[in-house]
Amino acid sequence: MITVQEAENAILKRLYIPCEESVKLEQSAGRILREPLTADRPFPPFDRVSMDGIAISFDAYANGQRLFPVKGVAAAGAPQVVLHDPSGCIEVMTGAVTPAGADTVIRYEDISVEDGVAKINIEDVHRHLNVHGEGSDRSLDEVIVPAGIRMTPAEIGVAASVGKSFLKVATLPRVVVISTGDELVEVEAQPLPHQIRKSNEYQISAALLGRGIRADRRYIEDTKEEVDRVIAECLKQYDVMILSGGVSAGKFDYIPKAMQDNGVEKHFHKISQRPGKPFWFGSSDEHRTTVFALPGNPVSSFMCTVRYIIPWLDASMQVERRNQQAVLMEDYHFHPDLTYFLQVRTEVDSAGRICAYPETGGGSGDLANLVRADSFLELPRGRNDFKAGEVFPLYSFRQQ
Amino acid sequence: MITVQEAENAILKRLYIPCEESVKLEQSAGRILREPLTADRPFPPFDRVSMDGIAISFDAYANGQRLFPVKGVAAAGAPQVVLHDPSGCIEVMTGAVTPAGADTVIRYEDISVEDGVAKINIEDVHRHLNVHGEGSDRSLDEVIVPAGIRMTPAEIGVAASVGKSFLKVATLPRVVVISTGDELVEVEAQPLPHQIRKSNEYQISAALLGRGIRADRRYIEDTKEEVDRVIAECLKQYDVMILSGGVSAGKFDYIPKAMQDNGVEKHFHKISQRPGKPFWFGSSDEHRTTVFALPGNPVSSFMCTVRYIIPWLDASMQVERRNQQAVLMEDYHFHPDLTYFLQVRTEVDSAGRICAYPETGGGSGDLANLVRADSFLELPRGRNDFKAGEVFPLYSFRQQ
Repeated sequence: MITVQEAENAILKRLYIPCEESVKLEQSAGRILREPLTADRPFPPFDRVSMDGIAISFDAYANGQRLFPVKGVAAAGAPQVVLHDPSGCIEVMTGAVTPAGADTVIRYEDISVEDGVAKINIEDVHRHLNVHGEGSDRSLDEVIVPAGIRMTPAEIGVAASVGKSFLKVATLPRVVVISTGDELVEVEAQPLPHQIRKSNEYQISAALLGRGIRADRRYIEDTKEEVDRVIAECLKQYDVMILSGGVSAGKFDYIPKAMQDNGVEKHFHKISQRPGKPFWFGSSDEHRTTVFALPGNPVSSFMCTVRYIIPWLDASMQVERRNQQAVLMEDYHFHPDLTYFLQVRTEVDSAGRICAYPETGGGSGDLANLVRADSFLELPRGRNDFKAGEVFPLYSFRQQ
Repeated sequence: MITVQEAENAILKRLYIPCEESVKLEQSAGRILREPLTADRPFPPFDRVSMDGIAISFDAYANGQRLFPVKGVAAAGAPQVVLHDPSGCIEVMTGAVTPAGADTVIRYEDISVEDGVAKINIEDVHRHLNVHGEGSDRSLDEVIVPAGIRMTPAEIGVAASVGKSFLKVATLPRVVVISTGDELVEVEAQPLPHQIRKSNEYQISAALLGRGIRADRRYIEDTKEEVDRVIAECLKQYDVMILSGGVSAGKFDYIPKAMQDNGVEKHFHKISQRPGKPFWFGSSDEHRTTVFALPGNPVSSFMCTVRYIIPWLDASMQVERRNQQAVLMEDYHFHPDLTYFLQVRTEVDSAGRICAYPETGGGSGDLANLVRADSFLELPRGRNDFKAGEVFPLYSFRQQ
């Protein structure tokens, strides 16, 4: 049995190595960028008017002039107009190119216009007022978004503005989620008294969907032949296999044996944690497939997905992971010498602290309790008493 | 000009009223549940074995018996077996029905088996050990997930286990995002010196996608006729119109006028905030359309989307919104008498506090700066100096 930290280290040594593919800008949300986005022109690309009003030559204003005859109009989207007479002004719209011969913009709110002459009513005018200078945000060819970033609306806006209608992104792994266990029936079915419906595969698939991955789902019956056959088949087809059930010490748990028979090297079996102790992890060098075989208990398999598989995916994608921590809000006692993943409900208090309130339910079989919680708080082993006010690592599974 | 709070109140008075529709379980992630999920049988549905090992009658153990001949095997998924001889035991697998006649399970780790007889090696056995009692998590017909909850992997797991392969969820509004401004060209195009590419519509659409909404995108040229025509058309087709550009005080800003001509009632125009001051908000009772007309500056339109439109969507869906707050980490001075939405980068420190570091860029035109930030920190008006250590409301736009 290994520790949580050892398990994490072992898992992070067997990453999926993404390739590159091109996706449409509109479909890039959540994907990992594999090329830098650079400014194809300066940002902004011209001296941009940033307020509706009039454009003047500052020198005229500095010389004491306050009345400026309106000589024309500059709209956003129109080619640059010219202020030929430096004692005149041009009406300008936000987004317009500052007229040649002008360098300063006075807002409509700060002028009055009568008979085609604008009168400036303020005294704190300076050169370049309300002009967003060419290249003042970013220079030509400057990297705005480096490669390796996860695309969010902010990056998508930048990509559009630099003309990228297609983006080079990291490929996502092909994943299959496999349920095992003869007690399982389909969601649509009416289970017999000794049966339960499949739920883990739906839950795990939904968690993967949060990382943009549409996993296939399969089911294996609890017979040695069937387990062998499906594992051999999936190793050829998928980069990642996630199994749930069939990894504890019971008579009918063929998975670990079948994995080894199929050339999947075991890296560990069992972690000193609750829930999720019987977690089995391996990989096949031949097929370049990573295998997560999770316990069949719904809370266990979900916790392992949140704590190990999602971080593994992020590490595979080479995105920086933001570790979270939260304050335990009630004393908590846990006896076994295991790392305990406590189900908690979090709230941000008025001091900006993430507060974690225990939501203990009926243990690893109590799927329903997850509905009350939003995160797991990782309480380290080697201790039994955890005090209110202490801070522990947090793994959230419910983002706003 | 109204305040941020007044604007929020006005917006939250004109909600989209969702209808109900049925979606497949696999497609329900992020949707708002409109029916309660109830236990169609007790949770768990039988006295469930929670560890691999042997099932015994506790009375025999209590009478001092430690050697139990193995009388059979109970696998997960098999009908209940019977322990006829109370001094014998049944090998049981996790997930199996506890055999009739047995009530207590001893783990393999705590026994040794020789010649078909199991010897119990521990002394702290109690009745029902390692048996997850029928109905101990939830009773028959108990509500597990109430209506009104956003579906996440946890709820999807519950739905599967209670047999819901289709779910009743709230419909999403039909949304169109409209860009305006003659200076705009397509992403694919090479802009002339005075032109820029469309970016706001991509950015806003990507933000809506985070709430499961696939918005249509349109463009209106800056002519009164075109603005009129497209607005009239969209009012008939959409529940929500989000426009960007065309709402400041300039000569070519036809939007507010065209809205009124089309029977859209104005609720406000201009909010005492930066960025995003020229925000225009209205609604058409006739068409039941809500209209957000945002400023054209990319940072302004994005801020308004994050601060007003996403919360409006959540309120329309009647989901509870979790307000966040964060600690400002550096003194900050802001002179104008406006609520200031400061771009910040957040980190959770070792005390579990959300710390907000200012990432100031080139103002509301500086789209590229958003890439460095992850949230807006709302600094109230009526003050100019904000001290490190103070806590303010936080609006995040980059969830992990």
